[in-house]
Amino acid sequence: MAVITSLEAHDIRFPTSRQLDGSDAMNPDPDYSAAYVELRTDAPGSLSGYGFAFTIGRGNDVQTAALNALREMIVGRDVAAVLDDLGGFARDLAADSQLRWLGPEKGVMHMAIGAVINAAWDMAARRAGKPLWRLIAEMSPAQIVDLVDFRYISDALTPGEALAILRAAEPGRAERIGTLLELGYPAYTTSPGWLGYSDEKLIRLARQAVTDGFRTIKLKVGLTLADDVRRCRIAREALGPAVAIAVDANQRWDVPGAIAWLKALADFNIAWAEEPTSPDDILGHAAIRRSVAPMPVSTGEHTHNRVMFKQLFQARAVDLIQIDAARVGGVNENLAILLMAAKFGVPVFPHAGGVGLCELVQHLAMADYVAISGSMDDRAIEFVDHLHEHFLDPARVRGGRYLAPVQPGFSAQMRPETLAHYRYPGGSVWRR
Amino acid sequence: MAVITSLEAHDIRFPTSRQLDGSDAMNPDPDYSAAYVELRTDAPGSLSGYGFAFTIGRGNDVQTAALNALREMIVGRDVAAVLDDLGGFARDLAADSQLRWLGPEKGVMHMAIGAVINAAWDMAARRAGKPLWRLIAEMSPAQIVDLVDFRYISDALTPGEALAILRAAEPGRAERIGTLLELGYPAYTTSPGWLGYSDEKLIRLARQAVTDGFRTIKLKVGLTLADDVRRCRIAREALGPAVAIAVDANQRWDVPGAIAWLKALADFNIAWAEEPTSPDDILGHAAIRRSVAPMPVSTGEHTHNRVMFKQLFQARAVDLIQIDAARVGGVNENLAILLMAAKFGVPVFPHAGGVGLCELVQHLAMADYVAISGSMDDRAIEFVDHLHEHFLDPARVRGGRYLAPVQPGFSAQMRPETLAHYRYPGGSVWRR
Repeated sequence: MAVITSLEAHDIRFPTSRQLDGSDAMNPDPDYSAAYVELRTDAPGSLSGYGFAFTIGRGNDVQTAALNALREMIVGRDVAAVLDDLGGFARDLAADSQLRWLGPEKGVMHMAIGAVINAAWDMAARRAGKPLWRLIAEMSPAQIVDLVDFRYISDALTPGEALAILRAAEPGRAERIGTLLELGYPAYTTSPGWLGYSDEKLIRLARQAVTDGFRTIKLKVGLTLADDVRRCRIAREALGPAVAIAVDANQRWDVPGAIAWLKALADFNIAWAEEPTSPDDILGHAAIRRSVAPMPVSTGEHTHNRVMFKQLFQARAVDLIQIDAARVGGVNENLAILLMAAKFGVPVFPHAGGVGLCELVQHLAMADYVAISGSMDDRAIEFVDHLHEHFLDPARVRGGRYLAPVQPGFSAQMRPETLAHYRYPGGSVWRR
Repeated sequence: MAVITSLEAHDIRFPTSRQLDGSDAMNPDPDYSAAYVELRTDAPGSLSGYGFAFTIGRGNDVQTAALNALREMIVGRDVAAVLDDLGGFARDLAADSQLRWLGPEKGVMHMAIGAVINAAWDMAARRAGKPLWRLIAEMSPAQIVDLVDFRYISDALTPGEALAILRAAEPGRAERIGTLLELGYPAYTTSPGWLGYSDEKLIRLARQAVTDGFRTIKLKVGLTLADDVRRCRIAREALGPAVAIAVDANQRWDVPGAIAWLKALADFNIAWAEEPTSPDDILGHAAIRRSVAPMPVSTGEHTHNRVMFKQLFQARAVDLIQIDAARVGGVNENLAILLMAAKFGVPVFPHAGGVGLCELVQHLAMADYVAISGSMDDRAIEFVDHLHEHFLDPARVRGGRYLAPVQPGFSAQMRPETLAHYRYPGGSVWRR
């Protein structure tokens, strides 16, 4: 019998605020960071698993402390018992009554639980010798249903309904796996659109994105309306009508302000308006959506759990959603969200960027394409081209599409030298 | 000029699970705990302030780490600048872009921010020589409006509307302060109703509660329906029709299950059904409320911020709310919630118990009575009679009513010997 022998947590921070890449209306100076967790075992081949929560700097120490607090619940567990019942493992962590009080199922503690669940999934995929997307895509519908915690969502999605969705997608699985391996999955890029870039830089990067094969770009908005109108206009003029342009306000507005601001952008055929207001405001998103129709509205990168996503769907509050691989309770909770999205017919445009988010979320989008929604042509994964060099199995985007990962695991493992140099506050990057 | 010279955080835990007092359907073995914070200054008289986040055991170290993470934002601040602009101070902490990513405004980081804000309020009340409830109750309406962060709630409550509510309550303030000092504020008790108590103990404690002057008791429910029906019946038979009986499921059910279960309790004239499902489920509470009417439905002790309360009101999801002094962003965010409750005409039954929650929340209820809602006869503060001996200014309940605190401050300071003995894991109580 092999057991989990250690849980190690690391506070890893990248000084991205020094360049102001990644600045938006709410987050002017992020230092992209990871509270990174390693699970080790005494199983053959030194089987291990890696995961992380993503933060933007201050507070990454708190997130790391939350990982350390989980050690006593993890070390000593039977490896096979965990990996053969990842649904039970995830429910067990999320349901711990004392830790649950710190949320429930939200914020620092929930993200830490999600990171450890994702590390267990990384381990499971390594054991299976498959990339994570394919491990899920080749599970039976009943196995996938068993991964989901239906608590608090049974009024919107029952296990039977989930099973029916998965069974309906079963016939085309092999063909879709082939398509993914051949063509990859559509990506869109936020790289041209950071606030603070000059108009010239915006135009140059937007044209470059199209040359690189992207069919959708996203602009950050929300600081001044005149700037946003001008930037949307020049982007539309530079790109023509065939390229989709989304905007992202990163929660900048109240409900009335969002409505007024977005109406002023109505002429530019906006693909979607992302995070117009607080991620907690289900009814607010519904009100905004009604008022700015037909402009599509979305949110999700900060939506903290499946109960909130359920209500976004029930209230018809959004036209599409973002999911984030490191915000909710790991792969399991994202499967619940993807199944609800499929039931309600809402397309998913996964949130990525930061550090490692592209690496993780590509697996979820691809598993969704093969086993759940069966669709990828009406959706795309965000791509931002930075910090990928810190991962052993970095995301690969070619011709505007994510190539399907082929290495076993969840692509979550960082390079050893990254852990040494970017450790906070003792690493060489921070001691300077 | 005086400055804040230190922020010290303490992991304090009480081994309450050894007696099983406080056990409910979701929390079988809580160890009531406080991540306790002390702010010290070099102001005259060694002015200091105390606050805490409440947890139920595991994870209190994470909560304490979150307090420590705030030190760099607090130490060195000008005392007068903080205490003369507590609205600005609270907004400044809640809006820190990097820390905000860990929520936003929810979970561990938000509770830590709330604890530090409350400690600043404790300091402000000490400086003023008044109990906190009276400090607020004697502020001008404009001063109180300035304490509130209207971001994300302006579609439900504008500063002008808040000002009108406060001005309308202004004429009777002096009379209501006199009433509070003379009569105190109604309390209700949960002491008879813990799960695991025998029927005989339930009857005995329920009758004792009425003898002690309480007009409302609350029973924990949600483990087995047959037990709940029997316990409600014997409580109703023992107390007669004039005593109000509430039930509290502590988030035990999904929406369909809550409806079925509560309908089975319809015969017992339930005063309110508390936390039937996930605190995140605004639409779920609305659905339950519609289905079990006229039984009143409530939630709030885990409702994580003003945006969620706003939606509970907008969706007409509850008949009454609980507020918790240590869950949201401190006094300021609770004032926003109380003002919205007043606007929407929803009575407030504050959550207390745990450790120190009675001490804190009594001040908020009394400030609400004097300066906001102007009402206390249709509401009551929860009371559980344990752990008060650890506070220098413990809550005092006589004849079923909270006596108005008279000592300066927020009643948040623990005894020095408590900090020594209950420190985790090194204190004498835990070393045994």
